[in-house]
Amino acid sequence: MDKSRLEAFSDGVFAVIITIMVLDLKAPAGDNLNALKPLLPIFLSYVLSFVYVAIYWNNHHHLFQIVKNVRGGVLWANVHLLFWLSLFPFVTAWAGENHFTSWPTAVYGFVLLMAAIAYFLLPRRLLAAHGRHSALSHALGSDFKGKISPVFYALAIPLASVSPHFAVLIYAGVALLWIVPDRRVEHVIEREGHK
Amino acid sequence: MDKSRLEAFSDGVFAVIITIMVLDLKAPAGDNLNALKPLLPIFLSYVLSFVYVAIYWNNHHHLFQIVKNVRGGVLWANVHLLFWLSLFPFVTAWAGENHFTSWPTAVYGFVLLMAAIAYFLLPRRLLAAHGRHSALSHALGSDFKGKISPVFYALAIPLASVSPHFAVLIYAGVALLWIVPDRRVEHVIEREGHK
Amino acid sequence: MDKSRLEAFSDGVFAVIITIMVLDLKAPAGDNLNALKPLLPIFLSYVLSFVYVAIYWNNHHHLFQIVKNVRGGVLWANVHLLFWLSLFPFVTAWAGENHFTSWPTAVYGFVLLMAAIAYFLLPRRLLAAHGRHSALSHALGSDFKGKISPVFYALAIPLASVSPHFAVLIYAGVALLWIVPDRRVEHVIEREGHK
Amino acid sequence: MDKSRLEAFSDGVFAVIITIMVLDLKAPAGDNLNALKPLLPIFLSYVLSFVYVAIYWNNHHHLFQIVKNVRGGVLWANVHLLFWLSLFPFVTAWAGENHFTSWPTAVYGFVLLMAAIAYFLLPRRLLAAHGRHSALSHALGSDFKGKISPVFYALAIPLASVSPHFAVLIYAGVALLWIVPDRRVEHVIEREGHK
Repeated sequence: MDKSRLEAFSDGVFAVIITIMVLDLKAPAGDNLNALKPLLPIFLSYVLSFVYVAIYWNNHHHLFQIVKNVRGGVLWANVHLLFWLSLFPFVTAWAGENHFTSWPTAVYGFVLLMAAIAYFLLPRRLLAAHGRHSALSHALGSDFKGKISPVFYALAIPLASVSPHFAVLIYAGVALLWIVPDRRVEHVIEREGHK
Repeated sequence: MDKSRLEAFSDGVFAVIITIMVLDLKAPAGDNLNALKPLLPIFLSYVLSFVYVAIYWNNHHHLFQIVKNVRGGVLWANVHLLFWLSLFPFVTAWAGENHFTSWPTAVYGFVLLMAAIAYFLLPRRLLAAHGRHSALSHALGSDFKGKISPVFYALAIPLASVSPHFAVLIYAGVALLWIVPDRRVEHVIEREGHK
Repeated sequence: MDKSRLEAFSDGVFAVIITIMVLDLKAPAGDNLNALKPLLPIFLSYVLSFVYVAIYWNNHHHLFQIVKNVRGGVLWANVHLLFWLSLFPFVTAWAGENHFTSWPTAVYGFVLLMAAIAYFLLPRRLLAAHGRHSALSHALGSDFKGKISPVFYALAIPLASVSPHFAVLIYAGVALLWIVPDRRVEHVIEREGHK
Repeated sequence: MDKSRLEAFSDGVFAVIITIMVLDLKAPAGDNLNALKPLLPIFLSYVLSFVYVAIYWNNHHHLFQIVKNVRGGVLWANVHLLFWLSLFPFVTAWAGENHFTSWPTAVYGFVLLMAAIAYFLLPRRLLAAHGRHSALSHALGSDFKGKISPVFYALAIPLASVSPHFAVLIYAGVALLWIVPDRRVEHVIEREGHK
């Protein structure tokens, strides 16, 4: 099974998700800076979600660089990830328009959690097709970030009922953790290239 | 004729369809769980259509893996399929917003039926360019699912006037039938690869 | 200059245009067939524009199959075509919502005319980079359809002030003319393949 | 690291941005030319932004033609550019709907400035991976346009508070400057091809 169409379809979905979220930033009626003020929380929500979709695209890109086979199960594990990402525009709008109050913040975190679980399952599905001693297995290593992120989200969700802004800080913190590029994968690709 | 652009264009259309359907999930005014409740049927409608578009993308991906020629007629058979899929956002919104009452459920089923017919015709158009003894012909085999699906939709559509929820169950059941990957096609590709 | 990104970007734009036009088919308030009735002209307008974008994609696909160089000028000739196509969602909505009265029908025709002119200029720009005796030059031949289409639109636009429905019939007739695949181009590609 | 997915994802984002901006051109209620009149400034705003996104796509295309490595930092420099471009639909709508009054014009210019800075940083990030004596370094040359554009925007932004229309003229002038294709890059590619 060829991986290029899975990548092309995923790239398309990533591109549409990251771009249509901006449609919730509706041009305000007034033409001065005061008219922009009420948009600030929606803008911040947009920035956070934009960074998250970019992170997922980045990681997806890195992951599939070392993938060789995409069997049936992988296609569905990938669609599962795209499903939760497709809900980003909705939770971004709901959380932004409500200034990150408790429930919208918790539901935003729930979608982050489900996407993180989907992204945790995806390489496991890939490993089943590549074997425990493959380059992929080596590159994934302990997958520390993939394991710790859902824990952070799971802690932040109940926290949102008490202090939603602190929960948002956790979401932003986990995003920062991921922005650091996955050196291990780059390392393996380089080594493979030298062979 | 090169098949890569047909795939790229189709992937783009699949990606946009599957993603813009979420625009109908509008962020509600309230900021608590009660405000989300009225969205539940729209969300379920979204999930069903998301799964259907993913199935069509999956099958399209599998089918074109073993395609070698795309002549004029194939391009239009493909556009015909994309046309019916492009109506998914509309029927998804109409059925979801009306809690799957009779008419919206029947029209949803009609679009499913027309997409199924279009997808039934597409490989036949491809076979005309590949010949009856090609790998494609072998991979399609009896095309049991492709033949039985339209029959189920055709039965469910009149049923929607009596019990629309039962019709929706049939739509969901046919989707489940398709989620099981098409082992025959994977089998043929593998064998071709061994040659 | 590599043509693959020009194709990828164009495919993306074609895919988004053909799909977002459906957003104007808004789910009606009622849940019976009567509620769908007012959507009929919008639906017909959608079908006509869908077919037109599909034709342009098809022709674009055929044309670039035999293109070898894309120099600076070609990129802008292509962007020029995409610009007029990007106005399809607007004129489709305006004409559909007003049941194809005179002005919306004339403006719809104007955008068709400008897109046809842009598509008439594109191969000429390509020929400048390929030479008069190239396969491209041979494949284009007399470009009868490309020359006759703008004439039909130019006739239909003033006609729309008297009988807009007759103008729409002309638009549909020209679309039919194009649906017939361009055998000449397929012929040249085949011959090139045999060399 | 493979550059093809970075290009595919970027093409997708470019294609969606350039196309969804047209959604702000809403079909007016009336069906005559007078009904179109209030849309004129929105249309002009659309044309300016369409040209700008096309320029960025063109330059991105040219730049990545001669790129060989895309390391972690490049991915984020690219995402940074896409982020500012993704705000084009918002500022285009705000400036257009307010007939380019001072604040919307200044904010439009601010997004142009940030995109220009992001595009100024991107090749520098690429150079870090390619070396000062690479074909890329040679092709960029003095990067006169890349350096002068942000200066023009920075001058136009405060000017918008006095004469917004003059600021818009500067934006359009910088766009014209860029439409002239970057001969240096084409030159280097050609020379590389001859080796």
